Amino acid sequence: MKTKQNIILLFALVAIVLTVFSCKKENTDDTNNKNETTTTNQEHPKLILTAQGVKDIRAQLGSIPIFDNTLQAVKEEIDAEIASGIEVPIPEDYSGGYTHVRHKRNWVVLQKAGVLYQILDDEKYAKYVKDMLMQYEELYKTLPLHPKTRSYARGKLFWQCLNDSNWLVYVSQAYDCIYDYLSEEERNKLETNLFRPFADHISVDSPQFYQRVHNHSTWGNAAVGMIGLVMDDQELIDRALYGIKDLKLDTKEKDDDGGFLNKDGKAGFLANIEEPFSPDGYYNEGPYYQRYAMYPFLVFAEGLHNVKPELKIFEYKEGVLLKSINALLNLSDADGDFFPLNDGQKGMSYYNDALVTAVDVSYHFGTQEPGLLSIATKQNKVLLDDSGLAVALGIKNGKAKPFDKKSINLSDGPKGTQGGVGILRHEDIELVFKYAAQGSSHGHYDKLSYSLYENGEEVIQDYGLARFVNIEQKGGGNYLKENKTWAKQTIAHNTVTQNETSHFNGKYDIGSQHHSVLNYFSSENENIQVVSAKETNAYPETQMLRTMAIIKDEDFEKPYMLDIMKVTSANTNTYDFPFYYFGQVLQTNFEYTTPQTLKPLGNKNGYQHLYLEGSGKASNENSKFSWFNKNKFYTLTTVTNTNDDLLFTRLGANDPDFNLRRDPALILRTNGVKNRTFVSVLEPHGSYSPVSESAKNSNSSIKEIQVVLDTEAYTAITITNVNDTVKLIITANSNASKEANHTLKINDKNYEWSGSYYFK
Amino acid sequence: MKTKQNIILLFALVAIVLTVFSCKKENTDDTNNKNETTTTNQEHPKLILTAQGVKDIRAQLGSIPIFDNTLQAVKEEIDAEIASGIEVPIPEDYSGGYTHVRHKRNWVVLQKAGVLYQILDDEKYAKYVKDMLMQYEELYKTLPLHPKTRSYARGKLFWQCLNDSNWLVYVSQAYDCIYDYLSEEERNKLETNLFRPFADHISVDSPQFYQRVHNHSTWGNAAVGMIGLVMDDQELIDRALYGIKDLKLDTKEKDDDGGFLNKDGKAGFLANIEEPFSPDGYYNEGPYYQRYAMYPFLVFAEGLHNVKPELKIFEYKEGVLLKSINALLNLSDADGDFFPLNDGQKGMSYYNDALVTAVDVSYHFGTQEPGLLSIATKQNKVLLDDSGLAVALGIKNGKAKPFDKKSINLSDGPKGTQGGVGILRHEDIELVFKYAAQGSSHGHYDKLSYSLYENGEEVIQDYGLARFVNIEQKGGGNYLKENKTWAKQTIAHNTVTQNETSHFNGKYDIGSQHHSVLNYFSSENENIQVVSAKETNAYPETQMLRTMAIIKDEDFEKPYMLDIMKVTSANTNTYDFPFYYFGQVLQTNFEYTTPQTLKPLGNKNGYQHLYLEGSGKASNENSKFSWFNKNKFYTLTTVTNTNDDLLFTRLGANDPDFNLRRDPALILRTNGVKNRTFVSVLEPHGSYSPVSESAKNSNSSIKEIQVVLDTEAYTAITITNVNDTVKLIITANSNASKEANHTLKINDKNYEWSGSYYFK
Repeated sequence: MKTKQNIILLFALVAIVLTVFSCKKENTDDTNNKNETTTTNQEHPKLILTAQGVKDIRAQLGSIPIFDNTLQAVKEEIDAEIASGIEVPIPEDYSGGYTHVRHKRNWVVLQKAGVLYQILDDEKYAKYVKDMLMQYEELYKTLPLHPKTRSYARGKLFWQCLNDSNWLVYVSQAYDCIYDYLSEEERNKLETNLFRPFADHISVDSPQFYQRVHNHSTWGNAAVGMIGLVMDDQELIDRALYGIKDLKLDTKEKDDDGGFLNKDGKAGFLANIEEPFSPDGYYNEGPYYQRYAMYPFLVFAEGLHNVKPELKIFEYKEGVLLKSINALLNLSDADGDFFPLNDGQKGMSYYNDALVTAVDVSYHFGTQEPGLLSIATKQNKVLLDDSGLAVALGIKNGKAKPFDKKSINLSDGPKGTQGGVGILRHEDIELVFKYAAQGSSHGHYDKLSYSLYENGEEVIQDYGLARFVNIEQKGGGNYLKENKTWAKQTIAHNTVTQNETSHFNGKYDIGSQHHSVLNYFSSENENIQVVSAKETNAYPETQMLRTMAIIKDEDFEKPYMLDIMKVTSANTNTYDFPFYYFGQVLQTNFEYTTPQTLKPLGNKNGYQHLYLEGSGKASNENSKFSWFNKNKFYTLTTVTNTNDDLLFTRLGANDPDFNLRRDPALILRTNGVKNRTFVSVLEPHGSYSPVSESAKNSNSSIKEIQVVLDTEAYTAITITNVNDTVKLIITANSNASKEANHTLKINDKNYEWSGSYYFK
Repeated sequence: MKTKQNIILLFALVAIVLTVFSCKKENTDDTNNKNETTTTNQEHPKLILTAQGVKDIRAQLGSIPIFDNTLQAVKEEIDAEIASGIEVPIPEDYSGGYTHVRHKRNWVVLQKAGVLYQILDDEKYAKYVKDMLMQYEELYKTLPLHPKTRSYARGKLFWQCLNDSNWLVYVSQAYDCIYDYLSEEERNKLETNLFRPFADHISVDSPQFYQRVHNHSTWGNAAVGMIGLVMDDQELIDRALYGIKDLKLDTKEKDDDGGFLNKDGKAGFLANIEEPFSPDGYYNEGPYYQRYAMYPFLVFAEGLHNVKPELKIFEYKEGVLLKSINALLNLSDADGDFFPLNDGQKGMSYYNDALVTAVDVSYHFGTQEPGLLSIATKQNKVLLDDSGLAVALGIKNGKAKPFDKKSINLSDGPKGTQGGVGILRHEDIELVFKYAAQGSSHGHYDKLSYSLYENGEEVIQDYGLARFVNIEQKGGGNYLKENKTWAKQTIAHNTVTQNETSHFNGKYDIGSQHHSVLNYFSSENENIQVVSAKETNAYPETQMLRTMAIIKDEDFEKPYMLDIMKVTSANTNTYDFPFYYFGQVLQTNFEYTTPQTLKPLGNKNGYQHLYLEGSGKASNENSKFSWFNKNKFYTLTTVTNTNDDLLFTRLGANDPDFNLRRDPALILRTNGVKNRTFVSVLEPHGSYSPVSESAKNSNSSIKEIQVVLDTEAYTAITITNVNDTVKLIITANSNASKEANHTLKINDKNYEWSGSYYFK
């Protein structure tokens, strides 16, 4: 090991020359000190696969179907790659371009080939990995910065450091797998010319990328740490865990997405666990980006667990990494698709490979939750490592049970004090209510917004993002300008927009200082589940308190949604309250007209993208709107007065590149009032068969909804069924704890109860 | 039998009194004469179930899974109905209303309960049928015409005779099943007060409904005939087979849909087989209405086969009834959904109960085609009769094979000489090309139109109809006015519209006099399948010759569509040539602008419903347009010149009730020319996974298409792949038989071939 230590010293010296930061000596010393106190596993593989794991896997091969099948598929894939030869092209392209796709493919292939070498004990795989790594070594040492200049942190193999980090996270696993197959000379060559400079480029040479709390940095940290674990390089490991030592960045600089580069100076893998995850495991950017970040979190954690067990990484922050997997799985609909909170591309689901990692790791390193096995069965593949073996054995031994998604309230913020996301579930109905913090640079201006699902289909949608990820014809597959002009704006969401301006004026600096506050969450009674939260900063001098319930009542076919949005303001405002439904208008109880030409509804803040397709005045105390989508019926009943406008809109105005979907909405608009309580019931009901052409239960079951009391302290609503049964719900607008006692007189009748709400 | 004969005589007398037609005596005599010469099966049941069939079924029960399961489901359904009691309300409503739905339900329940009585030999079912029939007898004799007045032929139980006929088709089966359970007195009561007057109301009292060649009349004929078979009433049977004797209607009167009531005086079940079916079994109204008409055709034929085998009904017109089932199954996409030719609601499929009948009857009375068993397996139910038993035994004995849909050319017209429908299939691609006659009153003005499918998904759609069948909120579930103003118009279809007017000026009288003419159909070579047809009447002095091919070329990932539409005219015209794609615009090679406000493209003939969303001038010899739908990519490459306009449109203008879908199109518009040959290639290519976020083969493989020759006799096109391979296709615009020999010089090179086209 003498030679190796010398090399590490040499590296440290090179690092000092290459970087402008002082205190390198101290840093190196510190590293050495830490090194002395830890026991390090020196047998390879050790990172993800372990020597013992390989023995166990080999012993079980042929008798663990899901593992065997995954292995067979990977073998066929890699054999085909080996047959078609190695390609390591000179980097040229953005995402989607040839060289990008090839290098991306190579990292996958290298990782898998390394695993095959270990499990199948066939040298052809090791040789293939070695040959390709040597070509990378040849190439890398010649590379300048990537020629494409759009990134705030350019890589060398790829146009952005992020992708370089992806590469190293995978390739460090491949290197670990063939470590012992290589001669010391070969290892030295690779480490000196490829891995160490590679790790330096994405860290010390790119601090604006590396030294942050951000999903990009998590990849960077994991990449540096994993190659550090394989190379047994404590300095790299420490750089991964704690960030670049003694480096402070300008806290006011912003990245491409408008996020602060490093607002509070925190950095490193542990800070990246600490900051974005709430104690419940909610990731502040939302499930789409959690899914993306999950892989480096878990795979580096797995490596740390294996190589540095004394760190007890899976117990860090009260086991938040494993909790986060549970949170993420619960942030998916009935089909396993993640709710598109903040920037999130629809269709991303727990079938993504990162979730195979998450499910297997959670099962193996957690409490062997049998529900995870049913998801693994649906995923129909496992990791080819110790955790995948555990899952395969669990399935084989018949331990799988359904993963039962329940209603759940997930706090946001590092300490769980910055609002959250509440999910109410009953039968096929799922309500996702967002009262979280801004959600980092991928956050939307959508305080107290919600979306509604029936059996995995969107009933009231959240638009998601304006981007076609990796489809190069659409802006290179990157965020489209409509993501800012539409998708992030408040009017794109199912919440209140005041005076046609977005929450926080659409300003990230302001939005990221605030969060909504939970009033109460109650899911104990399955038949009436309620979540209630307050927002006081989105519009100064205006308060919004939204209480949403999923109610199962025997007089209704399916559970329905009750929505009480209480807006109070010091000023006179216009409030717009949209319902982003899908499908065909069936019926309204109000008159409306449709214009001959379609004009945009406004000229900024998202309104410039909406065409006005029809408008009417509400004429009753209840306005009703029924629609039909995917062979199901839906009816909205909402309390209105004759000053209210009802606007039918359709997305697509000022969209010169057809980047937006032509989605419809009904917007309830109230003009010139200070206070307004929007009260609505949304009933999913009935069904239609185009084969038998029969329509079942195609009409609303609601005769009337009424606000019978609305004070600062309480709001009370009656819901009258067409069969004249009446239900009363009273919600506490404050002092809403489970233990609180309430007495209240409504229409000369006294009500007494304890808890957050009254329902009878 | 004495009493019965007396009753028949009595009926005949009543009929004479009730009807105004002469020659009744002769008619009755004639009937009696025929009666003497036929051998009549007198054992009940005999109509659909047979006495022998019942014995066979009972012997197999418990060992024929699909039959046993169907029986169990029906038993549960009917037991629940029996438990909830009989309801025979006084008729009041249109379709979708309570009394309509209840009477409709009753006919189903009666038929099923009758069958259960026979198969399970449990008298509770017979008693239930008897009790309900007696309530109908009580009610019917009191009934005036149905109070709702919208129909051209009002029923008594229902607002239209059509539904009364539906009722009798089913209920005659129930009556047959319990015939021997009833006393003679009970039978007399039912026949005198219910069945006979019921049969008369829908026939002699409603000749405008009954005495036609039309799907409505087919139901009427079958109803009268089936009750006639059960009652052994030859006069009714003859009335069913040959129509009301000696009755001639005004040949110029029209029905609600604009169809002629009785243009040529033909009527009766045999005429209804003769006229609408071509020798290939294509039904002139298209598959949606064939599906609807199929049940009475087949169930009455089954009855005739069982009771009057000497008629050899299944051999009538060279076995056209069974051929028509094969045609209908071939008129469905990969999912079994029928192509929406003419008026057709999307989603109707071979899972419809009428197709259960069709498949079982076709198997039993045809040649026991094993492919039918695989469709029966998908349908997961069988008829509870002799034919269902045959299918159940076939499946049980492992005889099922996939139903292999191939390319097929179906002639239209009673003699197969009025154009047709060509379907080209290769791998996942299906092209449906319509060059048929008008298609009766449900026809659309869409000469030489097509639609394109990939694996059951619409790539280039036919709009279908503007109607929400049985959804009462949408115009009572009936045809909407937009069916005429949009869905039937030429611009709603993928064909040429000249000067913004529809084919035949949208006039049924003119359209129904003409049909397109096949040039050639060639599917022998799986890799290049071609259909070509000519239309000379849609626009006077303008000819359209369209040649469409599905080509599988090794240089392309998937089969592509080649479309050559050659328009020649004596006059200068504007031609509009739309592509009704679905999904998101990805890329164009032409510049376009999008307007700030959306205006309708025109003011009539369907144009008033299209918004112009964008427009550009073609700038190259080829205009390219790529789009993205359901995670697949598509590219259109079409030959253009710089005078061409490219219009992005979206449906929905002048649609005050939101009756139309907001579907997009790209319209290629050529202004001020006499002749124009539209040449286009449509490539389906690639795929996208929202889970792995990877796009495969997202770009067109076409570098250029060129028209290298275009004369009256030939059109020749070259297609150049991005890899620079070039294919030449020459199509014969006339003299295109398989045997024809051709020599042709293109760019100084000689081509010699025999057959309809050249391709290399």
